[in-house]
Amino acid sequence: MTRGFDTAEFRDRLARAQEAMARQRLGALLVTTEADIRWITGFLTRFWESPTRPWYVVIPAQGDPVAVIPAIGAPLMARGWLCDIRTWAAPDYRDDGVSLLADTLREVAPDGPIGTPFGLESHLRMPLADFARLQDAMAPAQIGTDHGIIATLRAVKSEAEITKIRAACSVADRAFARVSEIAAPGTPLAQVFRRFQMLCLEEGADWVGYLAGGARQGGYEDVISPATNLPLAPGDVLMLDTGVVLDGYYCDFDRNWAIGRVTPATQSAYHQLLEASDAAFAVAAPGVTAADLHGLMADILGVGPEAGRLGHGLGLQLTEGLSLIPDDHTELRPGMVLTLEPGLPTGEGRMMVHEENIVITETGAAYLSTPAPREIEVLG
Amino acid sequence: MTRGFDTAEFRDRLARAQEAMARQRLGALLVTTEADIRWITGFLTRFWESPTRPWYVVIPAQGDPVAVIPAIGAPLMARGWLCDIRTWAAPDYRDDGVSLLADTLREVAPDGPIGTPFGLESHLRMPLADFARLQDAMAPAQIGTDHGIIATLRAVKSEAEITKIRAACSVADRAFARVSEIAAPGTPLAQVFRRFQMLCLEEGADWVGYLAGGARQGGYEDVISPATNLPLAPGDVLMLDTGVVLDGYYCDFDRNWAIGRVTPATQSAYHQLLEASDAAFAVAAPGVTAADLHGLMADILGVGPEAGRLGHGLGLQLTEGLSLIPDDHTELRPGMVLTLEPGLPTGEGRMMVHEENIVITETGAAYLSTPAPREIEVLG
Repeated sequence: MTRGFDTAEFRDRLARAQEAMARQRLGALLVTTEADIRWITGFLTRFWESPTRPWYVVIPAQGDPVAVIPAIGAPLMARGWLCDIRTWAAPDYRDDGVSLLADTLREVAPDGPIGTPFGLESHLRMPLADFARLQDAMAPAQIGTDHGIIATLRAVKSEAEITKIRAACSVADRAFARVSEIAAPGTPLAQVFRRFQMLCLEEGADWVGYLAGGARQGGYEDVISPATNLPLAPGDVLMLDTGVVLDGYYCDFDRNWAIGRVTPATQSAYHQLLEASDAAFAVAAPGVTAADLHGLMADILGVGPEAGRLGHGLGLQLTEGLSLIPDDHTELRPGMVLTLEPGLPTGEGRMMVHEENIVITETGAAYLSTPAPREIEVLG
Repeated sequence: MTRGFDTAEFRDRLARAQEAMARQRLGALLVTTEADIRWITGFLTRFWESPTRPWYVVIPAQGDPVAVIPAIGAPLMARGWLCDIRTWAAPDYRDDGVSLLADTLREVAPDGPIGTPFGLESHLRMPLADFARLQDAMAPAQIGTDHGIIATLRAVKSEAEITKIRAACSVADRAFARVSEIAAPGTPLAQVFRRFQMLCLEEGADWVGYLAGGARQGGYEDVISPATNLPLAPGDVLMLDTGVVLDGYYCDFDRNWAIGRVTPATQSAYHQLLEASDAAFAVAAPGVTAADLHGLMADILGVGPEAGRLGHGLGLQLTEGLSLIPDDHTELRPGMVLTLEPGLPTGEGRMMVHEENIVITETGAAYLSTPAPREIEVLG
């Protein structure tokens, strides 16, 4: 897999953004978050882990994007495709890039209006005090909604992006296939978590952006908790759910194991989960909606609309884009990458969840993860 | 190290927050980000990697905080010290928790005003469209600044927090001590990055929240870039800068190595960096300011005020709180944890950076990282 993207990839993204901006009569788009900035510039760094500095990219109605960023990021940004990189010495307690950003916005969009992501899953990554200062500096022009342009464009992946997500899935596939090396009755769950991340790295992950899971009798309590030191016990169902990062792209899927022995109830739940994701995979195709996939899986699971989210988009982030819920009527399109994530209650305060990653093709769907074994694997 | 905190720790944080709120006549505080919510509730999960769902915690002027969160997080939140946990089935495209949050704010602070983090390093982790809806629902009451209350309180760590940061530093210490096992002339830098993260996990990290670095002749180009596949070459200076996470707390320091051989110029730069951090450590004490430490190090480095940030606070995040810059006149207080991070240009487009973690005590400072060796280690 080649690292990064050709400039043509970014020019295509820019063209699609500007086409959508023209339809909405936007003079510029302002993006502030890691994923949105990386989508349009290719700027890839773990430095976002530091909340100190804000980062801004302005997408004009015509012409190339302008980066308005802390000086510390200039060498890395300059290695990408953007030429117009404006910097300040952040953090600056008197003016932390606000004047530079306001000047840039006025220059590229003198007549406004300026859009920024406003809707579901978005946030503005800058201090509210600075946003108020920016609005004052731009007045009477106001910064308003981007009409979902960025999120909508990000939801459909290019071939080059799909290649990266497939490679991330392969890393997780290989790590999952080796879990018998690190987990057996008596192994503390926290040790399984540490060793599993090591396996992901050994198999080629750049880093392990996400790991959650659980292990209790006949299921687990939830799917977002960190690991405890409780040792794995016979009868436990172990689940690991990981988001491995490769060249900035995530996979997001899980696997289940039975510890020591497997009960008929666990086997039955496992089969039901596979049946649900198999059925959703079989019908997933352009024109089918997110709600359709949810309804189909909820019926097989017998859980009704209160089932919660049964899958979602992914790519530059662990989760992004559509949600498999009854209210999401987004039509699937070729290039959309999503998880199928059916879940089932398996007794008082217990559950099991299964997850696969797929891509929508012209005629249907293809797996990016290697589908889980047909029978739950028993460890130890 | 015991995991988590006693409830008394959170009650103390709450008491200090409410004392500051009383001084500012705030009716409630609204917090929305991972670190702020974890600081007051103890809610620790990697699920924040998913941007889909907003999370809210309301700190009233009197009484315990109220969590207003997606139902998927209720079991984990209920294992903590909060009793009042209000949930909705997120994502809800019609009302994603906004009404529930507005009702809660009106209930606990009928007369307002409500503060939320507004200043440097902060952001509001909720969609702007939902923030506008919330402001409408609260009108005429408005949500305004928290006057820096949360950031100021977070900057001073308790003994229990310092214990966790010290443990995270020890993990990184042990991993850094083993770098000769994974790096030698010819090793691709990307492999060093992967193997170093494995060492951190093997030495006890819960996860590796941050890793950056570089390796070029006589220095590196910047300190935020991801690794390339370029093999280490004799004459390179290798730097690894890591933020290992243990029970939710970060360390943040780096180490340098000479590859194959060391030049007098590299030795000299290394000594100068150590001299700067040694000097800052020697004077760091209550009442000394962040700007004092910056000035002292900048003088020794001979770089003047344009040196950039030469250190910062850390703890729940990789960077937080004060900045060692000329404009930061924050007085150090016992319990503040910070990095000393002197950097030097070492030729055209090259630099070297050195970093240690320290805690301010009643009488001075103590190292949390084991100080770097007095001479740069040569690998291979």
